[in-house]
Amino acid sequence: MSKPLRILVWNEGVHEARNTPEHINDIYPDGMHGAIAEGLRALLPDAEVSTATLASDDEHGLSEAVLAETDVLLWWGHIAHDEVRDDVVERVQRHVHGGMGLLVLHSGHFSKIFIRLLGTTCSLKWRNEGERELVWNVKPSHPITEGVPQPIVIDEQEMYGEFFDIPDPDDLIFVSSFAGGEIFRSGVTFTRGAGRIFYFSPGDQDYPVYYHDDVRRVLANGVQWAAQPGRVRAQPEVSNPARGWFEG
Amino acid sequence: MSKPLRILVWNEGVHEARNTPEHINDIYPDGMHGAIAEGLRALLPDAEVSTATLASDDEHGLSEAVLAETDVLLWWGHIAHDEVRDDVVERVQRHVHGGMGLLVLHSGHFSKIFIRLLGTTCSLKWRNEGERELVWNVKPSHPITEGVPQPIVIDEQEMYGEFFDIPDPDDLIFVSSFAGGEIFRSGVTFTRGAGRIFYFSPGDQDYPVYYHDDVRRVLANGVQWAAQPGRVRAQPEVSNPARGWFEG
Amino acid sequence: MSKPLRILVWNEGVHEARNTPEHINDIYPDGMHGAIAEGLRALLPDAEVSTATLASDDEHGLSEAVLAETDVLLWWGHIAHDEVRDDVVERVQRHVHGGMGLLVLHSGHFSKIFIRLLGTTCSLKWRNEGERELVWNVKPSHPITEGVPQPIVIDEQEMYGEFFDIPDPDDLIFVSSFAGGEIFRSGVTFTRGAGRIFYFSPGDQDYPVYYHDDVRRVLANGVQWAAQPGRVRAQPEVSNPARGWFEG
Amino acid sequence: MSKPLRILVWNEGVHEARNTPEHINDIYPDGMHGAIAEGLRALLPDAEVSTATLASDDEHGLSEAVLAETDVLLWWGHIAHDEVRDDVVERVQRHVHGGMGLLVLHSGHFSKIFIRLLGTTCSLKWRNEGERELVWNVKPSHPITEGVPQPIVIDEQEMYGEFFDIPDPDDLIFVSSFAGGEIFRSGVTFTRGAGRIFYFSPGDQDYPVYYHDDVRRVLANGVQWAAQPGRVRAQPEVSNPARGWFEG
Repeated sequence: MSKPLRILVWNEGVHEARNTPEHINDIYPDGMHGAIAEGLRALLPDAEVSTATLASDDEHGLSEAVLAETDVLLWWGHIAHDEVRDDVVERVQRHVHGGMGLLVLHSGHFSKIFIRLLGTTCSLKWRNEGERELVWNVKPSHPITEGVPQPIVIDEQEMYGEFFDIPDPDDLIFVSSFAGGEIFRSGVTFTRGAGRIFYFSPGDQDYPVYYHDDVRRVLANGVQWAAQPGRVRAQPEVSNPARGWFEG
Repeated sequence: MSKPLRILVWNEGVHEARNTPEHINDIYPDGMHGAIAEGLRALLPDAEVSTATLASDDEHGLSEAVLAETDVLLWWGHIAHDEVRDDVVERVQRHVHGGMGLLVLHSGHFSKIFIRLLGTTCSLKWRNEGERELVWNVKPSHPITEGVPQPIVIDEQEMYGEFFDIPDPDDLIFVSSFAGGEIFRSGVTFTRGAGRIFYFSPGDQDYPVYYHDDVRRVLANGVQWAAQPGRVRAQPEVSNPARGWFEG
Repeated sequence: MSKPLRILVWNEGVHEARNTPEHINDIYPDGMHGAIAEGLRALLPDAEVSTATLASDDEHGLSEAVLAETDVLLWWGHIAHDEVRDDVVERVQRHVHGGMGLLVLHSGHFSKIFIRLLGTTCSLKWRNEGERELVWNVKPSHPITEGVPQPIVIDEQEMYGEFFDIPDPDDLIFVSSFAGGEIFRSGVTFTRGAGRIFYFSPGDQDYPVYYHDDVRRVLANGVQWAAQPGRVRAQPEVSNPARGWFEG
Repeated sequence: MSKPLRILVWNEGVHEARNTPEHINDIYPDGMHGAIAEGLRALLPDAEVSTATLASDDEHGLSEAVLAETDVLLWWGHIAHDEVRDDVVERVQRHVHGGMGLLVLHSGHFSKIFIRLLGTTCSLKWRNEGERELVWNVKPSHPITEGVPQPIVIDEQEMYGEFFDIPDPDDLIFVSSFAGGEIFRSGVTFTRGAGRIFYFSPGDQDYPVYYHDDVRRVLANGVQWAAQPGRVRAQPEVSNPARGWFEG
């Protein structure tokens, strides 16, 4: 494990560019990707953390060469899901199938990549009134929960509520409650091909959630859990082997 | 499926016998088992529903003959778990392994039978202050949720909170939130041997929860889901078959 | 449950039309869909069973009106996956999300609809040498296994082998071994939205598998398990409810 | 991760003591525990690997002090399951609940500890005729499979076959086929409390399986996956917190 983990934080970056909400650049002067990357650098000092946005280049900073050198990709998107090129989404999916880790954050539940990987509508309830979110750990043996308090208390967040239309996750790790009484499966893992996927819902353009120490800890744990630096990147393929092909 | 389902509602019956809490016999004049049985009879009119308690006889009403004629057993216990005979618990476990359905209710989480079947401590947080419980459906495709509103609203209930020390369930169906902010995996299924198990947490000696229409619907659905009336009752056994035993 | 189940057996029907393999019309004079439908009619005499093929009409017999009246769709495809219209695939997916049952058969693992619903490559190993397949039941409590012997013995079948690139299923029900030593997760269930999905691999254009009594039993059980005739067909949707929307 | 992992290989050691089968001391001159420990030491050179047997002392080498200093316990037993003291089994279970990793090997499926943790009969089919076992990887994203070939080929092994009466595992990692056609879920994980459990079936007193490079790799991977060296050993407990206990 001598090579550093290579982490890419992707954010559409459109809220920041449009200055909506007005206070976003007060909260996130370096963009949400900047705050997320800062947290990862602090907790994973040996990792190489870079960022990209929708506008990075004509492939949204997600070229074949970039993905081939990425162990774990984090994805934040919200108001510009449709502007992500379909061929780039297919490329990301192929890399996940080949073993690239993927962390999908908050409103990324409606991203093209998440919907393609999960096969559901990924719809949910929402209400943006700054409610308190409590994030409860229901799988304390999972490495993503290491060093995380029970519960995580987030003073103000957008409410996400059930029914959250996702497949049954491999592991249900966190369930949140909100001040209004709704609950949400806020931390869930999936496997697709050789790739490990972690969805974590806390995080929003309106609130400084990505500075929250416990949220940062969860993201750093998630990156470590999802990374497979020793794996050759190759997606599963069909084959037609002769009988006894596995014999001496 | 012409034969009626045979359902046995078991309740330790000790709160009722001791009149603790004082209002229990106002709420449950026929015992909690009576209220549960009444609900099942109303929703499953073709079923044969009977009841038994710790004091029913020297086997707690759970003789070999009785269990052999039971498709689904419901279990409510709280302050007298230790008084249940170990040999009876082993017998119930054997019948579950052989295909008898089991619904474990509320404080039955600490019953001997539940702990033996699950292998964990089954511990949890609790607080008895009559908080509102909202029961959210997170698996709407499951037959146990048929005809159940989203959410079920229970005005007053004891709080049960995470971490609930159970194995990962086969299906997570309901997650509750409480007024105080805690959440709880309140409806979960397990398989042990050939038997189907459903744990459902709403229900308590202090509150008239077993008259709640939606709770009654869940229990009736649970019974139908857990029942395997066509199965020969036989627990899995070790065997030492000759090579090719399955051939013509 | 007085209304009959409405079952639609869909087969691309291209092997039959092209007479490849040459003996297909000896084995399946009414097409594979005909043999499958015959088996379902025999075991589910109260159901309404119809068939459709790629060439049925310009929507492959899968119009909005037809799907709206279908409780469970069975899908067989192989050499013409790409000829299925994308808008029809999206429509089928929408109906699955809304609660239509789906049984995907054998080479349907590479169908557009299966890949879209699962999010993986669905690739596998294969070898068509008429090997004996043994189908082992690893979840005897599941209703799909009712009345099915342990193991199912199929004298000649195409080999399908692991790694089968699917997400972790909700339930793993059958695992097959083949004469050459490979194994395959041959009976698996998934949930997507409100819809129940069952994939079952035995069945091929080269062998008369769809006349096998045990295979027919599994398919009939699968249809009954996947059907939700009482459900209003509506896929999960996003919503933005006011705080306390669920109160009185 | 500066402290070395502390691994304890437990073997009942009765086959070795009784010299049954007669060739066991030719195959395993240092006992099966010796061979397993040797493999772990070779692959995990930084770990501290020790061994214990039924006869080690009057607590089978599994005192409170020993377990408190054990990150991962491996368990091999066969003909002396009943001789393991119940209080020692309860102690091991408590440590698993508190976060000690546990690897249960081969005939350990019928050990008291495995049955207590799983809640099922753990019965299976068996036939000891030296059949070839092929161990297929069905979850290539799992860390336990890192560096393991597809399939593992074991020339001679005892056959273990389905139905294997275990609960649905958290992760199904390996499925084996045997020359006689049976299959077996040979590598499965469970969580109980805070503890991670891995059952791996290859390994028998009659065959030199514990010298097989790939088997050794799986065991070393399993130990690393199950270990939680940073966790305070404490099993989940019931608590009765006041409302708002988690607030600043």
